[in-house]
Amino acid sequence: MPESDLHLDLSPTGPRRAALAAALRDAVRTGRLAPGTRLPPYRALAADLGVARNTVADAYAALVAEGWLTARQGSGTRVAERVAARPTSAPGKPPPHAAHAPHDLRQGQPDATAFPRTAWIAAVRRAVTAAPHDAYAPGDPQGRPELRAALADHLARVRGVRTSPDHIVICSGVAHGLRLLLGGGVLAGPLAVEPYGLPFHRGILDAAGVRTVALGLDPAGARTDLLATHPGTTGRHGARAVLLTPAHQFPTGGPLAPARRTAAVDWARARGGVVLEDDYDGEFRYDREPVGAVQGLDPDHVVHLGSVSKSLSPAIRLGWMVLPPRLTDAVLAAKGQREAWAGVTDQLALADFLTSGQYDRHVRRMRQRYRTRRAALLDALARTAPHVEVTGIAAGLHAVLRLPDGTEAATVAAAARAGLALDGLAAFRHPDSPQPHRDGLVVGYATPPDHRFPAALDALRRVLPPPPQHGAGAA
Amino acid sequence: MPESDLHLDLSPTGPRRAALAAALRDAVRTGRLAPGTRLPPYRALAADLGVARNTVADAYAALVAEGWLTARQGSGTRVAERVAARPTSAPGKPPPHAAHAPHDLRQGQPDATAFPRTAWIAAVRRAVTAAPHDAYAPGDPQGRPELRAALADHLARVRGVRTSPDHIVICSGVAHGLRLLLGGGVLAGPLAVEPYGLPFHRGILDAAGVRTVALGLDPAGARTDLLATHPGTTGRHGARAVLLTPAHQFPTGGPLAPARRTAAVDWARARGGVVLEDDYDGEFRYDREPVGAVQGLDPDHVVHLGSVSKSLSPAIRLGWMVLPPRLTDAVLAAKGQREAWAGVTDQLALADFLTSGQYDRHVRRMRQRYRTRRAALLDALARTAPHVEVTGIAAGLHAVLRLPDGTEAATVAAAARAGLALDGLAAFRHPDSPQPHRDGLVVGYATPPDHRFPAALDALRRVLPPPPQHGAGAA
Repeated sequence: MPESDLHLDLSPTGPRRAALAAALRDAVRTGRLAPGTRLPPYRALAADLGVARNTVADAYAALVAEGWLTARQGSGTRVAERVAARPTSAPGKPPPHAAHAPHDLRQGQPDATAFPRTAWIAAVRRAVTAAPHDAYAPGDPQGRPELRAALADHLARVRGVRTSPDHIVICSGVAHGLRLLLGGGVLAGPLAVEPYGLPFHRGILDAAGVRTVALGLDPAGARTDLLATHPGTTGRHGARAVLLTPAHQFPTGGPLAPARRTAAVDWARARGGVVLEDDYDGEFRYDREPVGAVQGLDPDHVVHLGSVSKSLSPAIRLGWMVLPPRLTDAVLAAKGQREAWAGVTDQLALADFLTSGQYDRHVRRMRQRYRTRRAALLDALARTAPHVEVTGIAAGLHAVLRLPDGTEAATVAAAARAGLALDGLAAFRHPDSPQPHRDGLVVGYATPPDHRFPAALDALRRVLPPPPQHGAGAA
Repeated sequence: MPESDLHLDLSPTGPRRAALAAALRDAVRTGRLAPGTRLPPYRALAADLGVARNTVADAYAALVAEGWLTARQGSGTRVAERVAARPTSAPGKPPPHAAHAPHDLRQGQPDATAFPRTAWIAAVRRAVTAAPHDAYAPGDPQGRPELRAALADHLARVRGVRTSPDHIVICSGVAHGLRLLLGGGVLAGPLAVEPYGLPFHRGILDAAGVRTVALGLDPAGARTDLLATHPGTTGRHGARAVLLTPAHQFPTGGPLAPARRTAAVDWARARGGVVLEDDYDGEFRYDREPVGAVQGLDPDHVVHLGSVSKSLSPAIRLGWMVLPPRLTDAVLAAKGQREAWAGVTDQLALADFLTSGQYDRHVRRMRQRYRTRRAALLDALARTAPHVEVTGIAAGLHAVLRLPDGTEAATVAAAARAGLALDGLAAFRHPDSPQPHRDGLVVGYATPPDHRFPAALDALRRVLPPPPQHGAGAA
């Protein structure tokens, strides 16, 4: 800390040197000045306090003599290395997710060790250096133009999205997008949803007072073909918006069939409503059939939502909404006069990451890595638990393991006892889902670092229920 | 773009080469593939689409022959430089604040040209390189431990705040802090406030359904001495929290007198309530009297809120709450399971900026720059408008110019006509303020870049009302 700023309350009367020494002593004693902290130069502190330079020098010298401070040639005056008690310090409490299970197969998290640090630092350097000065003024709530232009190109190329930078709004993630759309007065509830989904999103909708209407689900995906006749999505008070995960139903895993995509868009047109397309992992597909965004079918009736949470890291808080032009102004109004959420450094760096090709390169590298893990998961299950059906693995960062009826809760509990973090399918089920639950596990195979993945698979294998006994009395 | 990802929908029947060529042609024609975009290598696209490598090579060659693509040795195959129409592109609309007034003396914005880019880039590089892997996992909603530790030391040293990293929660700005505290169920309304304040904050409180009760204001600051008897802050349904700007009343400019600070804390203790201390510009003081944080008086009854909006840039979306220990869990519960707002790169970089001394160095440099501007403002007014009283200039990035009664609205209108952006004091007045309004202008002297500041002062001088005529008939 070569130059420190320091606030001291000097008693207004009495000798300045003694008052300053007392104030410094108090600051060290109470822990306000931490051990090792470098004090400001005499000159600087003297100017701040309106006292003579020698007064500061004398006070420092007195405290060095008393052992509160240390002075060493070339490193200035520092607080001595003694433990200073902080008055309000509570006993150390681990943060909520610090208590890691030894094995982590929770869905939704990319391998944190794979974040492309060097490339990201380079992107920050290039982007911050090149940014115009207004990048550091209060931000446009629509998001940086560099990023919106890069996203318009990228999403067109990779996801088949048709838009212009004018109709993209940057946010801090898909959840923020949902808050703006449904809590910000842009769209009114109720909202039709899939019968399985992210509980976190349902929590946001509940907090915004938005009622959700669960659709059915079959092998072709959510029953959007019934939107036009479903009692919750017809009539004056029925839903005019539907939230879907068309590329990869979350978390059960199938893509929405072409006819169901068309049905959703047709319904939105007929109702004057919108389809909210949560494209949470559209970039990670392993089979031969790319599944484009529904948005490309009708940019005027689909809001396309995405983020970098899966592709880069959930710690980079950036997402986007591609909006029907008629909704753009309302979303901007909900967001406010100035950008209050998305930091400019991340926005500029992501724009550079996209246009320089680093983003594609990283996604390609991760897709290869996850493909290998997915193969290892399938191989381990085929060898040791061939009775467990695996679904939803054509895309994304997780698989669904179908379990025999009535075994899910016990399996999740056994996993917890074995130090294996994962979720049962029931955790994602809408409380009013119209169809019966099927037992299953949601296995995120992207979460652990590479070297811990085999052990996590081994832990998984050990907690899976045995094959159902046919003819139990046969033995 | 050395390696591109590309989504294409191939017709499922017919020759692959023709289908691919048609899909590529369509992508270029509709603008999904922008001019200059580099196409993926044959090998990569072939693998993605499940076609032979030669099929891709042939399709590329056909489109090069047709003029859609160009191929050059060493730079791969790119989309030809012809303008591709984007179907939903609207006519260019400037973002809300792009229509800059020629002169900008609005308050609250530091000089955007002074952001310390080089030092910030270096901090990002150091911090991202050194971060543990879990930095890129889903974030702890309390904020990175590196940043909370750095802030605990910094705020103790510079502002006299007494806390520990356990009781700091990172947020994306002071406004986000208020949303969490008052919209998140941590504190119930009504809330006592100063009679002048930021309309943006009042808007947040209104949106959260929190009624505000305006206190009076005199030269010693907000009338916290009346909190114990004020009808809005006593009784069962009275306010139990008061929002203050003790270092520098916003925007009128005085510090809260010592007796008023004590009165606020005493009231909070007696009511079982809290003081919310918005320390929005506590680091920018120009006189000899440092004004410490009220939080230091009673860490159990004061929430200290701050951000980097004034000290670094409003485009870096980071703020903090220093909380009474009994409130920490409730604030974390309001924030959610994972960090949804504050990006990890900014958090890590700010921690480095604080502990490396770069933050202090930047604040010191800016304080000197703003001191010079403040002197230029005072000098210009003394020379050309000696009848205009200037107040609130011991600290911060703005001054208040007192105007003759009844001239404020006309002066603000004249400024707008002259291309000078600034606000009248009335814009900040609480609608139920208990005392009459005094006309004035709020002049932010930090906003323009250095080279435009003299012209902005000149524009200001020209719109100020003339001195009141005493004995108008004397001529």
